[in-house]
Amino acid sequence: MIKKEMGARHYLFPQPAALIGANVHGKPNYLVAAWCGVMQAQPPLIYVALRKERYTLIGIEENGTYSINVPSADIVVETDYCGTVSGKDTDKSKVFTTFYGKLETAPMIKECPANMECRVVDVLDFGGTHKMFIGEIVMSYVTEDVLAGDWPEIKKMDPIIFSTDGTYWRFGYSIGKAYKIGKEYHHRPKG
Amino acid sequence: MIKKEMGARHYLFPQPAALIGANVHGKPNYLVAAWCGVMQAQPPLIYVALRKERYTLIGIEENGTYSINVPSADIVVETDYCGTVSGKDTDKSKVFTTFYGKLETAPMIKECPANMECRVVDVLDFGGTHKMFIGEIVMSYVTEDVLAGDWPEIKKMDPIIFSTDGTYWRFGYSIGKAYKIGKEYHHRPKG
Repeated sequence: MIKKEMGARHYLFPQPAALIGANVHGKPNYLVAAWCGVMQAQPPLIYVALRKERYTLIGIEENGTYSINVPSADIVVETDYCGTVSGKDTDKSKVFTTFYGKLETAPMIKECPANMECRVVDVLDFGGTHKMFIGEIVMSYVTEDVLAGDWPEIKKMDPIIFSTDGTYWRFGYSIGKAYKIGKEYHHRPKG
Repeated sequence: MIKKEMGARHYLFPQPAALIGANVHGKPNYLVAAWCGVMQAQPPLIYVALRKERYTLIGIEENGTYSINVPSADIVVETDYCGTVSGKDTDKSKVFTTFYGKLETAPMIKECPANMECRVVDVLDFGGTHKMFIGEIVMSYVTEDVLAGDWPEIKKMDPIIFSTDGTYWRFGYSIGKAYKIGKEYHHRPKG
């Protein structure tokens, strides 16, 4: 276990490959982002960090709303496509089927099994390359086919993993339940 | 693709199962957290959201430093164990081999293939259950055995995925390169 110093860089694995939706000048636009995450359950907060020159930013600032959509592996081409072209030059509104929810200005993607519509509650800017939009989740939507009670079944949902080295992955197999498998630690030989 | 309204809840997949390290009263303490993510590349910012009553909080506020450690599937029991007991009642300093870096007060885990030591640059509190600690990454460390150039090889690193339904998973197989597979979109029949 020899450690190598890598400089001040991020090595967080896994990250999501989420599609961020915003209406820019009244038209749906989507981009793919790995830098988003949950911040709080009650009230439910989430964030997305976006490079300041991104076209989507205009829409988020225009409406104070955005969506986070979780794509399946079967739309990885469309997902990545939304990261390779800018809404500035290319109309991405027809790549997916858009629907709207409570906020009316946060476009969401029907083809994605899970969607969260968010109202911006804070914007952070530390003087670097990115702005962080903290959003309160106003309503979430899940495609009925993937649901098992309150939660999507991973194998049906088939979410895309973004790996920090710039590759997309599928989930493999489950290795245990949280707050449960850890109890085995007590029965292990120590030392 | 019939959508079901799920209430204002988070459905972000995947999330990391990161081990957060802090010295509490001079002793290393580790907890497992899924609510962390990258915020910016330059300067490199990352965050972790922690329930306010967590013991680890005391250490982060004491030193203004913490670490984010990425565990492998082979230590999933130890990882989850750190989420099932509190440092208040249980000494978790011997679960892993601790090492320190530049900051000297952010304990890191030798058994984890990737480690980031962070200096707190901001603390957010939206009056809910959690506090968010935004940290600047001061130095990162990767175990040499898992490295292929500048990046860990996923199959060697074998990071743990936290699924929002409370289960841990391993990575499956790669389905493409970011900023590359999306180019296939241009060659697809539309309509």
